[in-house]
Amino acid sequence: MYYIGVDLGGTTIKVGLLNSEYTIIDKIVIPTGAERSSEEVLKDMASVCREIMNKHGLTVEDVHSIGIGSPGIASPIEGIIHYASNLNFNEVNVRNEIQKYINLNVYVENDANCAALAESICGAAKGEKDVVVITLGTGIGGGIIIDGKVYSGAFCGGGEVGHHVMELNGRPCGCGRKGCWEQYASATALIRDAKAAANSDPESLLATMAEGNLESMTAKIVFDAVQSGDQVAEEVLDQYFKYVAYGVANIVYMLQPAVVVLGGGMSAQGANLTEPVTTYTQEQMCPGLELRNPVKAAILGNDAGIIGAALVGTTL
Amino acid sequence: MYYIGVDLGGTTIKVGLLNSEYTIIDKIVIPTGAERSSEEVLKDMASVCREIMNKHGLTVEDVHSIGIGSPGIASPIEGIIHYASNLNFNEVNVRNEIQKYINLNVYVENDANCAALAESICGAAKGEKDVVVITLGTGIGGGIIIDGKVYSGAFCGGGEVGHHVMELNGRPCGCGRKGCWEQYASATALIRDAKAAANSDPESLLATMAEGNLESMTAKIVFDAVQSGDQVAEEVLDQYFKYVAYGVANIVYMLQPAVVVLGGGMSAQGANLTEPVTTYTQEQMCPGLELRNPVKAAILGNDAGIIGAALVGTTL
Repeated sequence: MYYIGVDLGGTTIKVGLLNSEYTIIDKIVIPTGAERSSEEVLKDMASVCREIMNKHGLTVEDVHSIGIGSPGIASPIEGIIHYASNLNFNEVNVRNEIQKYINLNVYVENDANCAALAESICGAAKGEKDVVVITLGTGIGGGIIIDGKVYSGAFCGGGEVGHHVMELNGRPCGCGRKGCWEQYASATALIRDAKAAANSDPESLLATMAEGNLESMTAKIVFDAVQSGDQVAEEVLDQYFKYVAYGVANIVYMLQPAVVVLGGGMSAQGANLTEPVTTYTQEQMCPGLELRNPVKAAILGNDAGIIGAALVGTTL
Repeated sequence: MYYIGVDLGGTTIKVGLLNSEYTIIDKIVIPTGAERSSEEVLKDMASVCREIMNKHGLTVEDVHSIGIGSPGIASPIEGIIHYASNLNFNEVNVRNEIQKYINLNVYVENDANCAALAESICGAAKGEKDVVVITLGTGIGGGIIIDGKVYSGAFCGGGEVGHHVMELNGRPCGCGRKGCWEQYASATALIRDAKAAANSDPESLLATMAEGNLESMTAKIVFDAVQSGDQVAEEVLDQYFKYVAYGVANIVYMLQPAVVVLGGGMSAQGANLTEPVTTYTQEQMCPGLELRNPVKAAILGNDAGIIGAALVGTTL
């Protein structure tokens, strides 16, 4: 059996074909043309799905389903995208549109939830049924997997773990709240804190590694400066690990997943990220609620969205 | 069909018989004798279950199951209590013990989860499948209902919503963390804040209503002082509502339940509690994640534990 997964973004549509081992064996990428109507975008998407099937000599009998991951809010079972950031999709019945062209089951799901599902089925948390995947990027996104399925709440909008307040009257957040976790533990927050530290200590390696232009600061520079023994960077990063851990602990107290997975660009740091976060999280847990498994780094990278989208239909 | 629900506490064992409408039609209460072995306690419990069945002329064919709610951590499907505060229960196979005496299905579940299940099946959130019940008492407890079933995580210890940190380096908590929600939004926290305010303003109605002894301060006195127009009490209570709302919002961002229910002694305040909490929670939500239903007060009171325990077996 084969599975088609689609990563529908504001810039590109990526269509992937998975084999029975859930490996991507082919991928076609086309521009989204996001300014167009949803009907036109979905017609193109269906045509690429057809193209990838034809290329591999597959008929509808060979393919389990088409799963589509999109930004925003989607109802998987109904096949409806209610809203998608950067796209003209409002209450679009994606299933009906795609089925005008291909007679396959069609499912839709939020893209962060797709990535989380992929990590739980065949990624860092392979084989676990209760998993939370946290994406440390520009903001903090999340996907909650319960009993092997995406849980996104009663109205498909949950999983926004980055917007829980952990500092009353803290740093203002784009969501309108103050003190949201993502203002402390996103990659953006790390970079902001690193810039501030470098600014206060322009002789530090952290500052010199940004080559005289603090606007070029990256999370990688902070990790690299620590590797080179810079004390300023070490303090920034240590505080950052604590911020990440406080939020991970908050989630574990509430949801006690079998495994917490950290994704996003930061996950490239692997054990340099997950080991200190595991240690600090464990310090926050009370007897009976200790972490049973270490925090893990996501391993599927940018493919997670396609893989998870392709597999949504197998979990419903 | 009838259902037996047991509320196993450190002081008493309450055994309730529910009819097919999930109404408690009889209840027998005996002392727990918590210093005894689990075998002795469970033998007594089985004997009371038998007694209540005989009293109503019921045989094992008439009863769906026995459900037992206990403090601590329990595995419902396996019928094991791993640990129960104030009881000599450690890794006890409750099902096997009870089935020595009565041939009925036996399930166990944490007592707060039982109360939450009851409110979702036949209480304040009747008919809803995704519900979070938050108990505002000495601390803050919680029960998470997902798809009509208790969700307590991969290791049956989740749902501890009171121990998510909402103030970095905030008030120290018994769990070892600092700034836990329960240090701001439990009944205990309200009383502590009211005492402090009454202490600073001994002429206030809040202070005089505590009759010269701030140790006698209660949550009810604070609500009553507000009803009588006391400004000091109003400020304390308004801040308290905000603390409750920040945590409710944190939960909704993560889990987006259909309904949030507030239980514990505080729920007796009804709309005086839920209306301001709903308003302040709504102010914390971003577009797309608005509350769809107002926050509700629990309605089953102390019976929730028995009712939920009795119904656990119907949900597994």
